Amino acid sequence: MSKLEQTISFIKPVNPVFYEKAQSRLDNLTKPQGSLGRLEEFAARVVAINENIKPALNKKAIFTFAGDHGVAEEGVSAFPKEVTPQMVLNFLRGGAGINVLARHSGAEVVVVDIGVDYEFGNVKGLCHRKVIRGTTNIRKGPAMSMDEAIKCMEVGIELADEYAKKGYHIFGTGEMGIANTTPSSAIAAVFSKRTVEEVTGKGTGINDDTFKNKVRVIEDAIKINKPNQKDPLDVLAKLGGAEIAGIAGLILGAAANRIPVVIDGFISTAGALLAYELCHTVRDYMFAAHTSVERGHWIMLEKMDLKPILNLNMRLGEGTGAALGISLIEAGVKIYNEMATFGDAGVSERKDESEACPCRL
Amino acid sequence: MSKLEQTISFIKPVNPVFYEKAQSRLDNLTKPQGSLGRLEEFAARVVAINENIKPALNKKAIFTFAGDHGVAEEGVSAFPKEVTPQMVLNFLRGGAGINVLARHSGAEVVVVDIGVDYEFGNVKGLCHRKVIRGTTNIRKGPAMSMDEAIKCMEVGIELADEYAKKGYHIFGTGEMGIANTTPSSAIAAVFSKRTVEEVTGKGTGINDDTFKNKVRVIEDAIKINKPNQKDPLDVLAKLGGAEIAGIAGLILGAAANRIPVVIDGFISTAGALLAYELCHTVRDYMFAAHTSVERGHWIMLEKMDLKPILNLNMRLGEGTGAALGISLIEAGVKIYNEMATFGDAGVSERKDESEACPCRL
Repeated sequence: MSKLEQTISFIKPVNPVFYEKAQSRLDNLTKPQGSLGRLEEFAARVVAINENIKPALNKKAIFTFAGDHGVAEEGVSAFPKEVTPQMVLNFLRGGAGINVLARHSGAEVVVVDIGVDYEFGNVKGLCHRKVIRGTTNIRKGPAMSMDEAIKCMEVGIELADEYAKKGYHIFGTGEMGIANTTPSSAIAAVFSKRTVEEVTGKGTGINDDTFKNKVRVIEDAIKINKPNQKDPLDVLAKLGGAEIAGIAGLILGAAANRIPVVIDGFISTAGALLAYELCHTVRDYMFAAHTSVERGHWIMLEKMDLKPILNLNMRLGEGTGAALGISLIEAGVKIYNEMATFGDAGVSERKDESEACPCRL
Repeated sequence: MSKLEQTISFIKPVNPVFYEKAQSRLDNLTKPQGSLGRLEEFAARVVAINENIKPALNKKAIFTFAGDHGVAEEGVSAFPKEVTPQMVLNFLRGGAGINVLARHSGAEVVVVDIGVDYEFGNVKGLCHRKVIRGTTNIRKGPAMSMDEAIKCMEVGIELADEYAKKGYHIFGTGEMGIANTTPSSAIAAVFSKRTVEEVTGKGTGINDDTFKNKVRVIEDAIKINKPNQKDPLDVLAKLGGAEIAGIAGLILGAAANRIPVVIDGFISTAGALLAYELCHTVRDYMFAAHTSVERGHWIMLEKMDLKPILNLNMRLGEGTGAALGISLIEAGVKIYNEMATFGDAGVSERKDESEACPCRL
């Protein structure tokens, strides 16, 4: 059995008994039942995922996978391709959006070169896991070989295993790769059976002509490669990218290790959808950090029945949404762990406990 | 001139030049322009409010005003009236929802007895500013005298002045008061000209019969007191509460001191609406933390053209939403202060800078 198959075989549905245990504690805290809304949901989910009624979220890691895309040569992005390695170096110096927001949330950023078309040498702080030097142009053929696609997923799995062993409590996903909304839209179109136009947005900010070209490029990529919607690995290998595969692997690895994983924006959600198509049960372990302005994002979230935590019109990627989402999930877990119960605090309960609360979650 | 009049006279519209200065820095950070969405908006607003292009948000305070309501005797709440002082003591011990979330956001909680019907003695940590021992039952007459209403507002103003002098950078509002969604719905109905039913929700969790009774009680209170919609102080004195007045005063004081103020949920928003009716310019200084499940909340936010930051189905009050909102505003300010520019980081800019970004905020 391959590492990928083995990981999938380890993923089990979350035990509903733990939701009940968590909700029973939440209901006894000094607040009207259900009045902390989704914060309570986050806490109950973390308890159930960990199977631990005293959950901790102290050690947090956001994995920012970087990869290049041959399709960038089709003029689908507002930025030139060299920005991918430049931004990787910016991440390592701590000056990017993800660095700022991860610090704000107390999370570590793990920057992974999984497929950048640049030789970083021995640069310090980078997690060197390069599988390919960029995908090939998907308008002309498959992004990568099946073997490469599986290797990329296994990089994600290995990182999940490694950070689980190191005692991390929650993961976030992130990415960097000029042109990577293009393969993400292609993946979204294939799995959602929507038209390319319905799931394609303006990425980092392109004008109408470039947008029309992007839609055509994605339509061509699907026509030429004929990805088999029933075979997620075929879809991944044909449409790529390395970082999307790494994210999918990380999510599978998180679920196999019973660790909650917070999905960032559009590209991360394409990776999440790949993981979900391989194993629907991963849904139990995922949190959707936010809904970005990319049009296909909402469609993919709906397909997985994931309700985003935030809606702040963000469209940066890198893991920036995941960083903010992690902080709100942690807020929920702190409520669960730190609030006083009615008994502790000597606070009177509702007048009539037999009267079921209609606002109860 | 009274303290209230003087404070209102100090409130000036925010200078748009500072938005432009802030946006110009934001546009030069290593990210596509506008790609951090509302985080950028938060940063630009804080810069403009402070008139400071190097804003800090280190010192944060959430003011949780507590008051009782004579109308509780009409059976409008799921909880007995003694819960107000019990929860105040819970706040002082650090065991309530607001304590947990304020710690999470690095904010201090200032618990203010402005109108609780209980003698706290010299209990430590409480901010003793009691003006009344609860309002009178608004189904039978005015909540308080005009003099008391103004005194309550001035408590809020004085606290804003005091914490501005102490060097605090941002304020949040919060409250505790059994039955206080009832006066809040009454205030919302008067200013929005909606029916009572349209702006009334189920508070801490009441059943359908209690809800129908609550609507009747509010309708009666408006009929009997005949508040003058054009005179916000008349509305406040007749429908009350002390904590709602304190919140309105705090907001006016924040604006007069050029300090951003984050409005919590339904009851805080009733206070914000009173401040807004007294002086529309306060809007420039307010952030709406979230939209709660209370039906009238959204209607009041729309009236002030405030877009909530979060939507997490919360309905606890205390300042819990404000605590989470403050953390996201701080995230925006950190982006502004800490991210590298394209120049610093040696990252290439867009291919064609003359091509206006269609996704630009």
